[in-house]
Amino acid sequence: MKLVITGGAGFIGRMLAQAILARGSLTGPSGRAETVDELVLFDASAGAPLPPSLARAKLVLGDIAERAAIDALIDRPDISVFHLASIVSAGAEQDFDLALRVNLDGARHLLEACRRLGSRPRLVFTSSVAVFGPPAMGETVDDLSKETPQTTYGMTKAIGELLVNDYSRKGFVDGRAARLPTIVVRPGRPNKAASSFASGVFREPLNGEPCRLPVTLDTMMPLSGYRTAVGNLIRLHEAAGEAIGADRAVGFPSLDVSVAEMIQGLKRVAGGRTLGPIEMAPDPAIQRIVAGWARRTGSAKARSLGLARDPDIDSIVREYIEDFLD
Amino acid sequence: MKLVITGGAGFIGRMLAQAILARGSLTGPSGRAETVDELVLFDASAGAPLPPSLARAKLVLGDIAERAAIDALIDRPDISVFHLASIVSAGAEQDFDLALRVNLDGARHLLEACRRLGSRPRLVFTSSVAVFGPPAMGETVDDLSKETPQTTYGMTKAIGELLVNDYSRKGFVDGRAARLPTIVVRPGRPNKAASSFASGVFREPLNGEPCRLPVTLDTMMPLSGYRTAVGNLIRLHEAAGEAIGADRAVGFPSLDVSVAEMIQGLKRVAGGRTLGPIEMAPDPAIQRIVAGWARRTGSAKARSLGLARDPDIDSIVREYIEDFLD
Repeated sequence: MKLVITGGAGFIGRMLAQAILARGSLTGPSGRAETVDELVLFDASAGAPLPPSLARAKLVLGDIAERAAIDALIDRPDISVFHLASIVSAGAEQDFDLALRVNLDGARHLLEACRRLGSRPRLVFTSSVAVFGPPAMGETVDDLSKETPQTTYGMTKAIGELLVNDYSRKGFVDGRAARLPTIVVRPGRPNKAASSFASGVFREPLNGEPCRLPVTLDTMMPLSGYRTAVGNLIRLHEAAGEAIGADRAVGFPSLDVSVAEMIQGLKRVAGGRTLGPIEMAPDPAIQRIVAGWARRTGSAKARSLGLARDPDIDSIVREYIEDFLD
Repeated sequence: MKLVITGGAGFIGRMLAQAILARGSLTGPSGRAETVDELVLFDASAGAPLPPSLARAKLVLGDIAERAAIDALIDRPDISVFHLASIVSAGAEQDFDLALRVNLDGARHLLEACRRLGSRPRLVFTSSVAVFGPPAMGETVDDLSKETPQTTYGMTKAIGELLVNDYSRKGFVDGRAARLPTIVVRPGRPNKAASSFASGVFREPLNGEPCRLPVTLDTMMPLSGYRTAVGNLIRLHEAAGEAIGADRAVGFPSLDVSVAEMIQGLKRVAGGRTLGPIEMAPDPAIQRIVAGWARRTGSAKARSLGLARDPDIDSIVREYIEDFLD
């Protein structure tokens, strides 16, 4: 089978590709593990050179909002797609048109290209807890909560869930939407996601650099470690379609913690390392976006499908140290 | 001010235009009643000739999915739009691509054209109870219920609500979405809406014709008489923006009745008329669509905005007799 990961040159895309290449196969429509003989990472930009562990992956650069590029990509009936490409939250607030072009038009092109194959391929679309917001949102959000996003990013993700549901209902694709909490600890530099601080608060101190924290210590964040998220994306792809039901979106399990608890976990695990300082640097724009997000998530459907939850903050910090520092 | 009604040559479009021309004005952003000096009915086809009561309205034919046509239509900063144009439920199930073209692309063109004016015009988008469906839907749906549509029509309406919310949040338009129950009694012939029988069960017997009923007598339908719906559309346009809140969609009040109760009301009001027979003609395709709809609606926000509810079936039947038979 061929596997396409959009946004594949990004952090989660690379991690997912590495995990799938390490397994060598993926269970799809046949219900059996199929060998992945072609793996394409599609992205708008290449980023850092691919590591040796991704030597068998092919990087294709292109614009997801250009239909012809997507049609050329989706060219085998035995294909599976992980659709991670997206303009992120603060980026989408800055450039509304770009967000609609990439997040909405891009998703439509991909769904149409998959539909044209006629083989009802599996497609895993990454949605986000940013689909939730006041006034419908309570303290805890789950698979039955109304989606009233308060960002353009969340709006395009909620639309993506609706499209994936209807394309699946019509039998055009076997779609699944992964409603992701904030994924940590992302390596590298801060990005344009309003949630960027949730990685930075671990990463910068561990790197011996100062972290400028834009939110207050009591800010609650539903988090997932990246290893857990990648494992869950694969589990969601492999789940039997009937087990997911008519609403193809699945809220991923999260560890719901305050920023203060995140910092406590960091200090427990840091051991003898000298941590960079954490400085309070309130940013009203970021706080306004984050205040519109859910504080906790329920994940009954995810658990029924065998998706995992991180046991604690400490294990999330340890992963990052193992993978990127030691 | 200029007023544009898309789908304006249709039944609700004409009724709405007549009601607004009879008043002569509409309250908009200024908070004062503004004279409507230009009223355009935009539609894909003309239908019957416009009656004398619409002599001051201008009919413009065009394709809402063609951006240039919409840009030409939205040409004054002091404009208001009622966006009624839509491929309806059974029609959208038959032609998915047309439904996305008209309902999704069309809505986007209209929102973009309004945004380009820079005047944050009011736009009333007609959504539908068809946005609700299993598994999230309970017996009763309201403004806090999750939208998991089970038709392409409902999917495009749910997306429209999300777009109207975000375009409003960004300050591009002052949008409002009217989540309509089934509107009765529509005159003329049956249409491609799966709910078409809800008008036919009154109309055909009153016209002395047989009605072939595709659903069972215990089927529950949330209904609104057309006069009430038109009055509520005007009220929603005139409501102060702050009163609506961040979720710009408002579930319209409905009268929630079974088909058996609809027939009882018809017989009470019919008086000495000879009614055409009602024949049971089960249609599994229609039943499948209708089974996915809500049985009752809550409408707390609508009532807080002063929107009205029909008192009973009898008054709905009487309106139709007055307007179209006597």
